[in-house]
Amino acid sequence: MKKLFASIITIGDELLIGQVIDTNSAFIAQELNKIGVPVKHRLAVGDGYEDIWNALDEESKHADIILLTGGLGPTADDITKPLLCEYFGGKMVLDEPTLAHVQYLFEKVFNRTGPLLERNRKQAEVPDVCTVLKNEVGTAPGMLFEKNGTIFIAMPGVPHEMKWITTHHVIPIIQQKFETGFIEHRTLLTQGIGESMLAELIKEWEEKIPSHIKLAYLPNYGMVRLRLTGNSFDKATLNNELDAQFAQLKTLVQEFLVVDEDIPLEQAVAKLLKERKQTLATAESCTGGHIASLFTAHSGASSFFTGSVVCYDNKIKTQLLGVSNEILTTVGAVSQQTVTLMAANIIKLMDTDYAIAVSGIMGPGGATDEKPVGQVWIAVANRQQVVAQQFNFRFDRTRNIHITAINAINMLRKLIVA
Amino acid sequence: MKKLFASIITIGDELLIGQVIDTNSAFIAQELNKIGVPVKHRLAVGDGYEDIWNALDEESKHADIILLTGGLGPTADDITKPLLCEYFGGKMVLDEPTLAHVQYLFEKVFNRTGPLLERNRKQAEVPDVCTVLKNEVGTAPGMLFEKNGTIFIAMPGVPHEMKWITTHHVIPIIQQKFETGFIEHRTLLTQGIGESMLAELIKEWEEKIPSHIKLAYLPNYGMVRLRLTGNSFDKATLNNELDAQFAQLKTLVQEFLVVDEDIPLEQAVAKLLKERKQTLATAESCTGGHIASLFTAHSGASSFFTGSVVCYDNKIKTQLLGVSNEILTTVGAVSQQTVTLMAANIIKLMDTDYAIAVSGIMGPGGATDEKPVGQVWIAVANRQQVVAQQFNFRFDRTRNIHITAINAINMLRKLIVA
Repeated sequence: MKKLFASIITIGDELLIGQVIDTNSAFIAQELNKIGVPVKHRLAVGDGYEDIWNALDEESKHADIILLTGGLGPTADDITKPLLCEYFGGKMVLDEPTLAHVQYLFEKVFNRTGPLLERNRKQAEVPDVCTVLKNEVGTAPGMLFEKNGTIFIAMPGVPHEMKWITTHHVIPIIQQKFETGFIEHRTLLTQGIGESMLAELIKEWEEKIPSHIKLAYLPNYGMVRLRLTGNSFDKATLNNELDAQFAQLKTLVQEFLVVDEDIPLEQAVAKLLKERKQTLATAESCTGGHIASLFTAHSGASSFFTGSVVCYDNKIKTQLLGVSNEILTTVGAVSQQTVTLMAANIIKLMDTDYAIAVSGIMGPGGATDEKPVGQVWIAVANRQQVVAQQFNFRFDRTRNIHITAINAINMLRKLIVA
Repeated sequence: MKKLFASIITIGDELLIGQVIDTNSAFIAQELNKIGVPVKHRLAVGDGYEDIWNALDEESKHADIILLTGGLGPTADDITKPLLCEYFGGKMVLDEPTLAHVQYLFEKVFNRTGPLLERNRKQAEVPDVCTVLKNEVGTAPGMLFEKNGTIFIAMPGVPHEMKWITTHHVIPIIQQKFETGFIEHRTLLTQGIGESMLAELIKEWEEKIPSHIKLAYLPNYGMVRLRLTGNSFDKATLNNELDAQFAQLKTLVQEFLVVDEDIPLEQAVAKLLKERKQTLATAESCTGGHIASLFTAHSGASSFFTGSVVCYDNKIKTQLLGVSNEILTTVGAVSQQTVTLMAANIIKLMDTDYAIAVSGIMGPGGATDEKPVGQVWIAVANRQQVVAQQFNFRFDRTRNIHITAINAINMLRKLIVA
């Protein structure tokens, strides 16, 4: 069995100065993974002619499928198209269907009047040695080239255009041209145990996993995700093997198991609430709506998520959540009393089964002698009781906000399953 | 002047299956950029021995500085350290200061009792051919190697540990070992004009920019960011040139200019509010707290951001924001009437100068015959008036939520500066 590989090349100076985070290649990698195509490299290069050329040379040594994004726009820094034309020895020709599509978009979708700009007309020009892949959602089409058995597909870097072309062209083309195997995963999430102790706990089992199944430890925010990956042409056998190994693993980590699916913590908690037909509200000071936005980022949130009061200003804590001025001026907004009242009162205000309340100092400003940056009080509640706990995080603002949210959601999970 | 280059290699199978998004290399690229070190490649490779080895060989052809992250943890899938030991021809030795630090962390920070696990003790072992870079915030130290004038620095993949080592070791080491030039940027954000029209508008100016200054178009969410980049050893002259070019550019795009700094839209609006000493509240249905979390993600938000009511359930719209049952059952929650009331009433409820209110269908569920996925009503208000507008976005849930937030914040910006 010859091993098939893909490489992903993302083009753009903005990637090399860190101005944007590359989410495109993560998406492409995910889609390839689903159809069993392993990725050899993800490579980001700048907008330079030579850099792109060399990347094509280099990656075609490693991969049978090379996917490129970026550099196909209408402006002077977009050099990928003429370069590909030269690389594959073609000449530029006008593609009539693309021109008609560009015209349609400008007239009907962008509501632009007047004739097409020359630079937009040029977006309909393609190398005569490529197969044009229609871009339904944008002006720059995808382009498929072949050379010595390797296929190259160039896509625009705009994420939703790249996604459309990947889904509608790239994946079907690969499935048609190559015999792809299957890559299957089993992932679970643990909490309350570090990576090292976890490795000790499952050591004997880990040593006996067959060699075509790999185990990865993915620690993040004080939780550790464990992922089993198997690769085979025989999907049924592979799935049986993975199921058997995964069952053993689950038994071993039982005590620390949060969820046995590759979903984020908030979705695991959402599942619990939906199963129980129960509801949730949040009262957020320092997280500023981040906890609410995590729950509502996933479809179906309306079946359990009622709402939130973001009480950034203390007057809102008093007015909507019953935290008295006396409490605020004596023990302060970052205190057990405050979050306990916030949790108990948001349950009443929104008539929910559960609540989360948080108040803390996320930094870099706002610290006092008694309350340093990272000090947070979290409360979770049901209709009978409130549980509050203090945390001290020591990260930057972004991470403090996120780790506060994760800990709050995990406290809620424990209360639900208690 | 010999051109200095860095390459960033990130190690981990999770990057190649798209399970995690690589934010590490964006951070490193930003830090290198600040000290004038251009990045040649960002390369992600899997946990395979041969893949990592080849990446080291390959990137040392292109770069003088090679930064690696990942694969330094205590578990069996972490193979980077023994590989580096072999690659640079060393042998593993115990580093006493690292062992003392690991012991300190386990006892004092993680509150672990009992003797160190063998695998944690191993974290204090390093190749005898490296310089150990202390990791104050974690157990795995950074390691510096040199070979044929190229330096290699390996760091753990845990983001805050990588950041700490980059800031405290990598940047100072590079500044000490190499004569770095300066890279300077000027960035502005435009709204209301597409990439092509913008290119036409500034065409004559763009053609005359000197060759050591580059212009990049960075379109996103219907806005286009323009970035000028210059590279030189003479910082003062470079800054004067960039200032002059940037002033011309600003004049040309005046009509569409949102902000002349490299800050996100919500920070531009935050600046306006802080300057005016005015306040803001949000009433969010479909964005579920995302708008509030964007504003509060930045330090200093408490000086203008009062709070939010996330009214995901319609009963909260009625109870806290005065949207009557009659309106909800006739024109519905996604309507001009609803968002107008939400905006007008959150201003009163939270006593602020401005408000944003949104209600829409983010998908994939929730659509009706009359109201398809992507239909959104946005209202912005001050104490005198409410402005409402309907939008129809056609993306996935995540993007619909974010583009709703961006458009709402931009509507607020227009109202503030009107």
